[in-house]
Amino acid sequence: MAFSVALISTGGTIEKTYDELHGVLQNNVSVLDAILASLTLEGAAITRVPLMNKDSLEMTEADHDLIARTADIMAEGHDGVVVCHGTDRLAVTGHRIHERLAARGRLRKAVVLTGAMRPYELRRTDSVQNLTEALCAVQVLAPGVYVAMHNRVLAFPGVRKDYDRMTFVRDGAG
Amino acid sequence: MAFSVALISTGGTIEKTYDELHGVLQNNVSVLDAILASLTLEGAAITRVPLMNKDSLEMTEADHDLIARTADIMAEGHDGVVVCHGTDRLAVTGHRIHERLAARGRLRKAVVLTGAMRPYELRRTDSVQNLTEALCAVQVLAPGVYVAMHNRVLAFPGVRKDYDRMTFVRDGAG
Amino acid sequence: MAFSVALISTGGTIEKTYDELHGVLQNNVSVLDAILASLTLEGAAITRVPLMNKDSLEMTEADHDLIARTADIMAEGHDGVVVCHGTDRLAVTGHRIHERLAARGRLRKAVVLTGAMRPYELRRTDSVQNLTEALCAVQVLAPGVYVAMHNRVLAFPGVRKDYDRMTFVRDGAG
Amino acid sequence: MAFSVALISTGGTIEKTYDELHGVLQNNVSVLDAILASLTLEGAAITRVPLMNKDSLEMTEADHDLIARTADIMAEGHDGVVVCHGTDRLAVTGHRIHERLAARGRLRKAVVLTGAMRPYELRRTDSVQNLTEALCAVQVLAPGVYVAMHNRVLAFPGVRKDYDRMTFVRDGAG
Repeated sequence: MAFSVALISTGGTIEKTYDELHGVLQNNVSVLDAILASLTLEGAAITRVPLMNKDSLEMTEADHDLIARTADIMAEGHDGVVVCHGTDRLAVTGHRIHERLAARGRLRKAVVLTGAMRPYELRRTDSVQNLTEALCAVQVLAPGVYVAMHNRVLAFPGVRKDYDRMTFVRDGAG
Repeated sequence: MAFSVALISTGGTIEKTYDELHGVLQNNVSVLDAILASLTLEGAAITRVPLMNKDSLEMTEADHDLIARTADIMAEGHDGVVVCHGTDRLAVTGHRIHERLAARGRLRKAVVLTGAMRPYELRRTDSVQNLTEALCAVQVLAPGVYVAMHNRVLAFPGVRKDYDRMTFVRDGAG
Repeated sequence: MAFSVALISTGGTIEKTYDELHGVLQNNVSVLDAILASLTLEGAAITRVPLMNKDSLEMTEADHDLIARTADIMAEGHDGVVVCHGTDRLAVTGHRIHERLAARGRLRKAVVLTGAMRPYELRRTDSVQNLTEALCAVQVLAPGVYVAMHNRVLAFPGVRKDYDRMTFVRDGAG
Repeated sequence: MAFSVALISTGGTIEKTYDELHGVLQNNVSVLDAILASLTLEGAAITRVPLMNKDSLEMTEADHDLIARTADIMAEGHDGVVVCHGTDRLAVTGHRIHERLAARGRLRKAVVLTGAMRPYELRRTDSVQNLTEALCAVQVLAPGVYVAMHNRVLAFPGVRKDYDRMTFVRDGAG
């Protein structure tokens, strides 16, 4: 019996693609399907939920709420939830999801957020590693809200992006 | 404080490299360092323990015992243990480690075995995914002996290689 | 007006793929289409001629003749010919083609042989470089028979494989 | 005797690298050495001439002249010259080099310009193909000034960038 995972995509660096004419990286097309196709997935039965495709710096309060509500709903019908998210506002959404699920007594599944510092389109990218970790961790973690990235799993609340080290750390960590 | 992991390498497909003169894949050089260098590792502090470099079909009883004894010792001094292993005899070693730790009342850490069906040297390889999963899972799993591979974590005892699907499954699974 | 190229494939290392069950590299499926798809080809209009798929060590005299006859025929109807070939017997076929075309006064197009020391399936392969060179050189070379590989173009006759340096050299070269 | 090539680098898309903090591709570090290291180069002995590292849209008249003078000088001391260049102004520099060498009666070597529409840092890049073609073509072309890219070699004068097809074409072509 496969473990059912709802994979909610919201955009961010992980999904940026290259525009040859203007020479910039943009959020136009979802690349998650390409990453999923490159992995061997025997554990999870994945349902793709393409919610939005935004650089997280452009997310509004309504966006954070929409993601939290969607994670909440998806957690009802699946064994776990993974959310792909731009890293700049990932912690805001992580806290929002935790707050919502805790307030409603619905911390009954693992919800794992992940993202990337370097787009999949790049030769050296952390996107494949991070999605691999999220899709593995969601199956073995206790109920709660987490970020899985760069070989580390951190539980919300109390997580922030460290712009010096370009990774996620616990609040108060160096 | 980083989570300390002893990474025991024993050879197998994951470490095979290509011999241009004879056109074959062989276990000569460890490629784990190349894989580790390609990952962003913020969670685990890894100690490399290069124990042997064998195609697991050539492993003797003494080899399985040596790996089990080494995993046992390493589990004492680290927060977790990962063992890279040829897939043909991975389940034999997994059961041996579980038997030894259970008999001695020392199932106090997570010991995660992994390997690959396709060498790292190949363009399409499962080795990076599998090592990524093992190095993530070892930090969040309860004490016990596991195989992490292909987006699935299975606990010993009761695991076997399925030669039709070329992955690991629970005993009795189709 | 695109330059028309007949691309004759005969097998060899360049086309070897990996057999997970037996852990060996074999000539089963043509991978040239995957390489071609990875290139941007604005110059040549390529006609694929999949003639055989053999490790060149297994080629018979009849095979060498068949390739030479096919190159001869294809040179009539195209602006140039590229032959992908196992490197062990590439020079035998190259001399055979040159002999045939010279004897019949038909050295009127460039015929470029190429191959690989490391299969395309490998992460580090010379196959893409070598096919790129052959498909470029065939458009600018004077009529004749050549091998293009490893950033060097050599004219037949007088070419051999150097097993120490694992590349092609002129007869008499060190 | 290796064929000596002066490889003049001027920047452009081919050399752009990714800035994690700002999420943009920039001309900071030369990546040509990484590309060269990935190729097997048995034909050319390459002398690197890192002249500038500019997006060609920012090149001044003085820049085009400097590149032309440098190509002229390097052609004296080498068997051939390759110039890596941003594609937006590549044709301006190509015509400048041709004009200079023709006016001085010094069209005695092949000078081959190349570049890329997609940076080397991208998973799918044309940079390796284009540099491979330039380093092969420079050894077999008659004296003159050319652009080698996308499996096509075009001689100056009379070459322009086609912004619809994102490649180089002859003036008057499609």
